[in-house]
Amino acid sequence: MKNIALNTNTQDHPNFETGTVWLVGAGPGDPGLLTIRALYSLQVADTVIYDALVSKSILENVKPGATLEYAGKRGGKKSSKQPDITKRLIEEAQKGKRVVRLKGGDPFMFGRGGEEALALAAAKIPFVLIPGVTASVGGLASSGIPLTHRTTGSAVTFLTGHSAGGKLPNDLNWNAIASGAPTLIFYMAIAHLESIANKLLNQGIKGDTPTALIANATLKNQHIIVTSLEELVKDAEKEKIVAPAILVIGNIVELRRALDPNSSIEERYKAARKIISHWHQTPC
Amino acid sequence: MKNIALNTNTQDHPNFETGTVWLVGAGPGDPGLLTIRALYSLQVADTVIYDALVSKSILENVKPGATLEYAGKRGGKKSSKQPDITKRLIEEAQKGKRVVRLKGGDPFMFGRGGEEALALAAAKIPFVLIPGVTASVGGLASSGIPLTHRTTGSAVTFLTGHSAGGKLPNDLNWNAIASGAPTLIFYMAIAHLESIANKLLNQGIKGDTPTALIANATLKNQHIIVTSLEELVKDAEKEKIVAPAILVIGNIVELRRALDPNSSIEERYKAARKIISHWHQTPC
Repeated sequence: MKNIALNTNTQDHPNFETGTVWLVGAGPGDPGLLTIRALYSLQVADTVIYDALVSKSILENVKPGATLEYAGKRGGKKSSKQPDITKRLIEEAQKGKRVVRLKGGDPFMFGRGGEEALALAAAKIPFVLIPGVTASVGGLASSGIPLTHRTTGSAVTFLTGHSAGGKLPNDLNWNAIASGAPTLIFYMAIAHLESIANKLLNQGIKGDTPTALIANATLKNQHIIVTSLEELVKDAEKEKIVAPAILVIGNIVELRRALDPNSSIEERYKAARKIISHWHQTPC
Repeated sequence: MKNIALNTNTQDHPNFETGTVWLVGAGPGDPGLLTIRALYSLQVADTVIYDALVSKSILENVKPGATLEYAGKRGGKKSSKQPDITKRLIEEAQKGKRVVRLKGGDPFMFGRGGEEALALAAAKIPFVLIPGVTASVGGLASSGIPLTHRTTGSAVTFLTGHSAGGKLPNDLNWNAIASGAPTLIFYMAIAHLESIANKLLNQGIKGDTPTALIANATLKNQHIIVTSLEELVKDAEKEKIVAPAILVIGNIVELRRALDPNSSIEERYKAARKIISHWHQTPC
């Protein structure tokens, strides 16, 4: 690893006006996966209100004298309620601050960014929406698992394993979910891991379907297990996987044997040859 | 808009070794949505092989003397076939170059990045996978449409409207797709727009379901129409929407009335008040 000073003079951004809130995605964790615009917003902001899934090294990019305020909902720290967070955003903007609301991953993909933007609109606070690399896109790449692949199907469904009330969402048609997209990706999968696995097995997804569980995606302490749907709960307990984690179910997980960044060239080569001959890659 | 020199000294990256290929996501188009690591890779690369959906202003970040090679598949320019692209990646790596394969959006979400990585593995070429902001995550944010929202459901399905052979994918269970996730997002939606709309209407998705079609997402020429599923084809023709475009189907599209970046504060305010009272936002 080495540090590099980047020349980003050619990048331009909207003006960060005083009294506005930028809702910004911090990406999946690895600071290199921050967007240039997110970095710019941190360097200009007067107040940064960040959540629990934002890395410390990302927060180090704020300008001297900027206020950093924690509003996360996870771990040992005191939690903030959603109305308290939006109240703080509005207060800071009304004081004339440039406010960054920094959320892990992408704010609008299971991140409640839409709710916060709605509250800002209802308070007549101007805002700007800055997307980020969502946790699953980052976490799968760092694990050597594509999100889609031509031989494993034309669709992927993203779900949350955890509703706002803390339960497994009760609005899902599990039968349709299980027989729709061939790849399923759950955010916040740990709390109800057993229920998720059982519901999918009950709806006919085969027990030997390849399954991966990725904790702390893209960070140095990333922890991944690759198993089958029927062995998932047992293996997650054995390996002591803790939240936050992304769950991936489907044949796409098989590709990891050839694409795992931590495998040797020789291992990747053998696996790739086997997959290519087995899956009959079409030529163009 | 203004140019800002960013201090990115604190970011670190893996070493870009000679004779390796980095498969890099260029993000949805807007150069500000490039990741810091993608920018780093462009500034270090000897050879950059890029596809049609990569903005010119992103390519301007390469170092002096780097080779830029077009390998796109769209528009008036000559197309490259997939085996020709992977052959070029392998040739350049074997010459000892630092090769960036730059793809629009995220390479592993309907981007064939997995296929290229598999070909590299089978040729014993080392590679690194760098995710990006996928086109829909970027395009929805710049349109004021979240990908998920608590009151519109706990899942979203992403699909491609265009298989490798150019047809509508034939591996989809449309019935399950239509009754699974409450939000559907199609990449490459234009070529078979009418077939997609008809299949979903035939499977029971209501004709008045809010629908948005976003062309050239995040770019200055972004063009969006908001309509209903039954009016989609007519409106897309009337507005002359051309590829590439992202199609979004579901009640989530309603949120745009309150979150559209191009609306006035007053318009957003009125719409937000209406949505909040109508949808009964839960308080925490």
